[in-house]
Amino acid sequence: MKLATIKRNGSRDGSLIIVSSDNARFITASDIAPTLQYALDHWAGVEAQLRQRSEELNAGEIADARALDEDALLSPLPRAYEWIDGSAYINHIVLVRKARGAEPPATLETDPLVYQGGSGRFLAPTQDIVHQSEEYGIDFEAEIAVVVDDVPRGTRAEDAEQYIRLVMLVNDVTLRNLIPPELAKGFGFFVSKPATAFSPLALTLDELGDWWRDGRVHLPLRTVYNDSLFGDPEAGPEMHFSFLDLIEHAARTRDLTAGTIIGSGTVSNVDRSRGSSCLAEKRMLEKIDTGSFSTPFMQFGDRVVIEMLTPDGRSLFGAIRQTVRQG
Amino acid sequence: MKLATIKRNGSRDGSLIIVSSDNARFITASDIAPTLQYALDHWAGVEAQLRQRSEELNAGEIADARALDEDALLSPLPRAYEWIDGSAYINHIVLVRKARGAEPPATLETDPLVYQGGSGRFLAPTQDIVHQSEEYGIDFEAEIAVVVDDVPRGTRAEDAEQYIRLVMLVNDVTLRNLIPPELAKGFGFFVSKPATAFSPLALTLDELGDWWRDGRVHLPLRTVYNDSLFGDPEAGPEMHFSFLDLIEHAARTRDLTAGTIIGSGTVSNVDRSRGSSCLAEKRMLEKIDTGSFSTPFMQFGDRVVIEMLTPDGRSLFGAIRQTVRQG
Repeated sequence: MKLATIKRNGSRDGSLIIVSSDNARFITASDIAPTLQYALDHWAGVEAQLRQRSEELNAGEIADARALDEDALLSPLPRAYEWIDGSAYINHIVLVRKARGAEPPATLETDPLVYQGGSGRFLAPTQDIVHQSEEYGIDFEAEIAVVVDDVPRGTRAEDAEQYIRLVMLVNDVTLRNLIPPELAKGFGFFVSKPATAFSPLALTLDELGDWWRDGRVHLPLRTVYNDSLFGDPEAGPEMHFSFLDLIEHAARTRDLTAGTIIGSGTVSNVDRSRGSSCLAEKRMLEKIDTGSFSTPFMQFGDRVVIEMLTPDGRSLFGAIRQTVRQG
Repeated sequence: MKLATIKRNGSRDGSLIIVSSDNARFITASDIAPTLQYALDHWAGVEAQLRQRSEELNAGEIADARALDEDALLSPLPRAYEWIDGSAYINHIVLVRKARGAEPPATLETDPLVYQGGSGRFLAPTQDIVHQSEEYGIDFEAEIAVVVDDVPRGTRAEDAEQYIRLVMLVNDVTLRNLIPPELAKGFGFFVSKPATAFSPLALTLDELGDWWRDGRVHLPLRTVYNDSLFGDPEAGPEMHFSFLDLIEHAARTRDLTAGTIIGSGTVSNVDRSRGSSCLAEKRMLEKIDTGSFSTPFMQFGDRVVIEMLTPDGRSLFGAIRQTVRQG
């Protein structure tokens, strides 16, 4: 089942829709659940009805299905109660810490890195990334995220998969030049992590079939930057901590509420031929090779597209498609 | 106007009520706004109706007003889209960093310290603080917080007061012994900051009268620990960054959504005779004076009460009243 949120006048949270498996058509679901947060809050009560309508839509049995325009969508969750982003790809951590002259943590392989992200306003999937200055060092980070149901405190990784409701893609926009002074204060990221964007579509696990296994998504995550392929690293094998591990960590000392989003961190492969999922990594590799950075961070007008294609070229989640603007 | 949220069967978000100025009686407001989040999302449309009912309640004109039982309340916002906690009392920062052998940041007096807190599940004001082990170093932190309306990115402190809708008290529960390994990873607090509790009542600024000025609350914040006065520091004069400064900082690179909560950090005075608002400070003072800590962190069964009294002894926000339990 593919769920999305369509813009609705005067509403912060939009309206829930169901999208066909080929991303071409949609039908409202707001009579079943007005918003995606409502659906997640009442999953046991609404899932069967949503799935039935999804099947009818895919069977071509719904006469008033309409053509999908991704520009008409908000983030699947336009705002969420928690956005907990991990950093589960070790290669990314090592490279980015090198880039800012910091050591990777001693517990790199045993204790997941996560930060609490701002979740009050997410960017729509095709909304401009608007910031005041290019001097902030504007960067994209292509990631994967899961949306969970209520998760009890103390849930272990081996019991965690039952709580995963949806999978999405992420552009975890980062203001690189604001990170060093912020981390020097010791309280983690805040102004350096502005509003995040998610993919147009949020998928239940069955839509991923065998590409979902071991708490990971086994497909390449594709980033196109200013119309050139920037990276398509495999998201599965090098995800050191699975989403199940990240859920265990996130729920270690707290209950999680339905609709909590948990991110993978920037997808990254050791094999350089797969490119990168953020500019910071590419810059670090340049520095290692040549002694200096040559690729700048995003300038006003630069464009990034993040999507995940099946081997036969279908876009599973639709595309995050954003341009950086001054404002 | 005093607003609160009463428990309602099967609801995560409870029902909105209006409480009389003397905290004695309440009347439902769920016909005007079902939840406090709804009221904040539609403030311009509902404020006048809420205020009218509040005036009728205080005038004794509402026949079906009922006696208030603080144990029947949830957190005013049982969950929120963002919980951004500052650390605006310099004395607290200096003492607590000493306690963990860390230096205060170089920008201590010019750049506010804030962290992004978990906001998916807040504890009710009289709910037990349940954790697995006393070894976590369970501590309370008595604070003040404001709840804001939508705040545009780039809002300056001098324009920020118009966005403040409500004021509450906070118990920012902290697991002290989980902080050092977590901060060593460089991403800030996460498992060391479990669910937070807020006061039973959320007040509009007019309820504070002259005690609200310069973006600060000018009254002592009273903490009683196991039936003994633990601290009653003045919350106003030593709040180095005002709530207006904290809003400016929080909105520097992002829009804030209605219902975002912004905290002051642990209230702390240089004058030791006013006591402390958390165990970590008291322990640090013991260490400075005697070379060793004598007060332990909270043990199972320990009780903390946080409230703010007017000079004539009225409890403005009701009392956060919590016991630590194993679970």
